Amino acid sequence: METIHQTVRIEFQYPVHFTRRIVDAGNSVLREVIASGGDGGRRVIFVVDEGVCTRERRFLQQLEGYCCAHSGVINNVARPIVVPGGEAAKNSREYVDLVRSAVNSHGICRHSFIAAIGGGAVLDMAGYAAATSHRGVRLIRLPSTVLAQNDSGLGVKTSVNRFGKKNFLGTFTPPFAVINDFELLESLSDRDWLSGAAEAVKVALIKDRAFFEAIEESAEPLRRRKGEAMERLIYRCAQLHLEHIAGSDPFETGSSRPLDFGHWAAHKLEQLTNYGLRHGEAVAIGMALDVTYSYLTGILPEKAWRRIVRLLLDLGLPVYAPDLETRELLAGLTEFREHLGGELTILLLRDIGHPVEVHQIETERMRESVLALSEYAPVCSK
Amino acid sequence: METIHQTVRIEFQYPVHFTRRIVDAGNSVLREVIASGGDGGRRVIFVVDEGVCTRERRFLQQLEGYCCAHSGVINNVARPIVVPGGEAAKNSREYVDLVRSAVNSHGICRHSFIAAIGGGAVLDMAGYAAATSHRGVRLIRLPSTVLAQNDSGLGVKTSVNRFGKKNFLGTFTPPFAVINDFELLESLSDRDWLSGAAEAVKVALIKDRAFFEAIEESAEPLRRRKGEAMERLIYRCAQLHLEHIAGSDPFETGSSRPLDFGHWAAHKLEQLTNYGLRHGEAVAIGMALDVTYSYLTGILPEKAWRRIVRLLLDLGLPVYAPDLETRELLAGLTEFREHLGGELTILLLRDIGHPVEVHQIETERMRESVLALSEYAPVCSK
Repeated sequence: METIHQTVRIEFQYPVHFTRRIVDAGNSVLREVIASGGDGGRRVIFVVDEGVCTRERRFLQQLEGYCCAHSGVINNVARPIVVPGGEAAKNSREYVDLVRSAVNSHGICRHSFIAAIGGGAVLDMAGYAAATSHRGVRLIRLPSTVLAQNDSGLGVKTSVNRFGKKNFLGTFTPPFAVINDFELLESLSDRDWLSGAAEAVKVALIKDRAFFEAIEESAEPLRRRKGEAMERLIYRCAQLHLEHIAGSDPFETGSSRPLDFGHWAAHKLEQLTNYGLRHGEAVAIGMALDVTYSYLTGILPEKAWRRIVRLLLDLGLPVYAPDLETRELLAGLTEFREHLGGELTILLLRDIGHPVEVHQIETERMRESVLALSEYAPVCSK
Repeated sequence: METIHQTVRIEFQYPVHFTRRIVDAGNSVLREVIASGGDGGRRVIFVVDEGVCTRERRFLQQLEGYCCAHSGVINNVARPIVVPGGEAAKNSREYVDLVRSAVNSHGICRHSFIAAIGGGAVLDMAGYAAATSHRGVRLIRLPSTVLAQNDSGLGVKTSVNRFGKKNFLGTFTPPFAVINDFELLESLSDRDWLSGAAEAVKVALIKDRAFFEAIEESAEPLRRRKGEAMERLIYRCAQLHLEHIAGSDPFETGSSRPLDFGHWAAHKLEQLTNYGLRHGEAVAIGMALDVTYSYLTGILPEKAWRRIVRLLLDLGLPVYAPDLETRELLAGLTEFREHLGGELTILLLRDIGHPVEVHQIETERMRESVLALSEYAPVCSK
């Protein structure tokens, strides 16, 4: 009997909105997103990052008011589930179970919604719970940090940590919609505000030299917390990020993973510092390491190398951490390969905006790269 | 700032092979499937249904021999993980955790394989573990029952049970390949052999009258366990099933779910009988119920109704179970709607091969349908 060759084609579409004050009764974005899901009051469960509630003390109250004002469209079936922000949300089974239990007890179906409001970790965790309940409840992401608005909240990934490994469990599941509320960024600490810019530098380095130059020009206003400069940075970063995902391999079946530039060391550093580093800070260090390696192996000109390190420092981002010098760092290469699968594929730079893939890393040269960066230790330990 | 409209398109392809004696060193199918994953010895973990090991006492030994004989292609990194068959595999977290732990400790990546050998429940559970580890390890399904070969093992679903609800957790994730080994069916009990035919009757009823007639003609050889008749039934059922999945809504975002014909009552009956019914038996009863309801509401002619019930009985399948008469049965309608999402959509028949969707069920008429079927109670309680 002949082999049957099966082909399954799927198309996902989702909007990424940019707005301010999502919970103002007059702001129609969230209401319209939910209304686009079909007729009638749609069941929604909100999952909210504790950090948002701490920073914006009246947020939950305003959210409740918003749902009341739009109760014909939004059927807010339960009190919001408030979960810790950061990796704590992803490290324990507790919070995923909490969201799944709510799906079960409040009759949330595939046409209902989980709306997650928070930083990347909370969005990842709520997304994983949504993606795996009933084989996929609709997820609305409302990212509350720079990093989540310009990077992690935009894409098609969900995840939690397991076996001490970041994102060991997860799925590729596009969201129903993403709503970026710029106002949520205003109450961020300086550290969170700036660390999110690292992913913008990343996407500029691998995709768009003009964007890199624009970030150089706005480094000072960004440090001085000028909202407009940050909004422009987020929008352009989102465009480039989304264009990339829509490209040839959205579910990452191959070995190449350009958006993970600098991330092998970043993931390992986060783990080694017990998540004492922000993801964006770890990415800044990881990129600094890989561009230094690019320079020391003769791929990247010295001038470009210095310019990149300079921009990271100008943005108040670190380029060095003492854990770079631990033996375990290089185990990050193996873990990175195992997580992504296939052949080890690391992105290096031959110029700003011009990446190149390599499949081997010289251990000794990588150690020299760490040493070269250690001269920035004093400025990074502030 | 303007909304960005993101589109993500994905295409999955996988072969469904039909063969005999997959573990014979001379059978190249499994080796070639693994070789198609890329160069070098590919890491594989086998997850095997205890039922297969019980029925085929030398199976694990033969599997090991096969891997040895093809060690240039198959890097069998661990002893096979043997798990209980049936819903036990899906009811507890234990087995999913076991597979995920093996993925972690044996360096299984997205380009490595989990090869699951067993009935539908084991394939569902191993598939869920594979789909959620590293956001998707490649899954090879080797279905060992009629039901898994002609239905559950072919499609794009993975699942485990939670909160006492069947398939509460799961994903839509196409496999890397499916290999149907007909020889594995020979040691099935009569009950398992026949119950798998229910899904073939289902797909015939909703898609293909000629196939229904072919099953009528082969009912006797099927009951007498003629392998050839079963192979033809499985192949045609697989074709129709796969054609349907490749159609307009493979990841079931809408409310219509034709392949779930008869399944609202089937799922509830499995739960009410504490999985004392085989899935195929429950589907036979569920279909009998919905065709009786179709007849009593005047949609389906009496003659077609009698013919369908007759075929189920001729195949040795039940059309009645005492739990049909419990109050809880109708809760199955709500649970079905919640699991699938959207509007309640139940498939009825207006003729063999000609389904019709309805969005409401008359409770009283459904009770009458149960009553009508109760006359078959004696023949079904054997």
